[in-house]
Amino acid sequence: MRLKPKDFMKLLIRPVIVVSTISKEGVSNAAPFSFNSPVSFSPPIIAIFSNPKHDTWRNIKENKEFVVNIIGEEFGPLMKILEKDYPYGVSEIKEANLTEEPSRKIRPPRIKEAFAWLECKMIHSAVLGDHVLIAGEIIEAEVKSEVFDKVVLLEKAKPLCHISGEYFSTPLTVSKFERA
Amino acid sequence: MRLKPKDFMKLLIRPVIVVSTISKEGVSNAAPFSFNSPVSFSPPIIAIFSNPKHDTWRNIKENKEFVVNIIGEEFGPLMKILEKDYPYGVSEIKEANLTEEPSRKIRPPRIKEAFAWLECKMIHSAVLGDHVLIAGEIIEAEVKSEVFDKVVLLEKAKPLCHISGEYFSTPLTVSKFERA
Repeated sequence: MRLKPKDFMKLLIRPVIVVSTISKEGVSNAAPFSFNSPVSFSPPIIAIFSNPKHDTWRNIKENKEFVVNIIGEEFGPLMKILEKDYPYGVSEIKEANLTEEPSRKIRPPRIKEAFAWLECKMIHSAVLGDHVLIAGEIIEAEVKSEVFDKVVLLEKAKPLCHISGEYFSTPLTVSKFERA
Repeated sequence: MRLKPKDFMKLLIRPVIVVSTISKEGVSNAAPFSFNSPVSFSPPIIAIFSNPKHDTWRNIKENKEFVVNIIGEEFGPLMKILEKDYPYGVSEIKEANLTEEPSRKIRPPRIKEAFAWLECKMIHSAVLGDHVLIAGEIIEAEVKSEVFDKVVLLEKAKPLCHISGEYFSTPLTVSKFERA
């Protein structure tokens, strides 16, 4: 069946990440994003795609720094709080009863309840359609040791993934396929 | 535990897509990519990130057109064939015993065995680290009707996702969470 092209994301499943940033005044902000992808191995780069009106972009434009908090399915019920448009200056992290933790190398805080953290510095941005590409070099990567063995342990980390609207999924089983 | 920043993709799980393109001489090419993300709703845009030496990029640079074939876990054993570096002019689609089907609006073929297809025209590119961002506007989206009801039906489509190296996963269960 043919779909409207704008419905294409209903065919794809992607990890939800929560991006934490900090304003000039030192107020932290956090928002979930499912438009994101690794970009490059060397240097290590990740891309997120943000609504340009969003506080996330406002803060990153100001100071270039952000944390990609990689989250499990227990964040599912928090989506409606984390993505809400609070007045600039209100921290979604506090509203969602999550815990801020200092990052190692940048000013925006980590969210303690995530299972992994990527500390990033923006190296490139570009407006693409109704979103803005924000490419960040990863300068620090850390994971809860109990959810990692060679790669993330899905059955323990239970990564939250998004399809569209209210539809989410958590991949749990690993399969191995030979590579070229 | 701290990881080398270059290992960050071991923490994320992403859909594998197979991108089909066509050379100036009319020879089709197909390659799997797990670095990809939706970008924009209006216009609908998807991004893939390619090794700049790859035939996929060579073909898209020439004629701007590509198909994103969205695939199920039955493609897992074909990864080692689809990602192999065959001489330019050899079609991975034929080598993998897959079936070419004409697209509706562009020249590169679809792969019949995929469960959904996005026909794209490149609107932007940029070198980012060791990969090149290829942003394509989606001009046609189609899905096998038996795997779609509001969104993709995971338990039927069994979308193949990638973590790192030989590690893959197929998300099967849907959860619903309220949105803001």
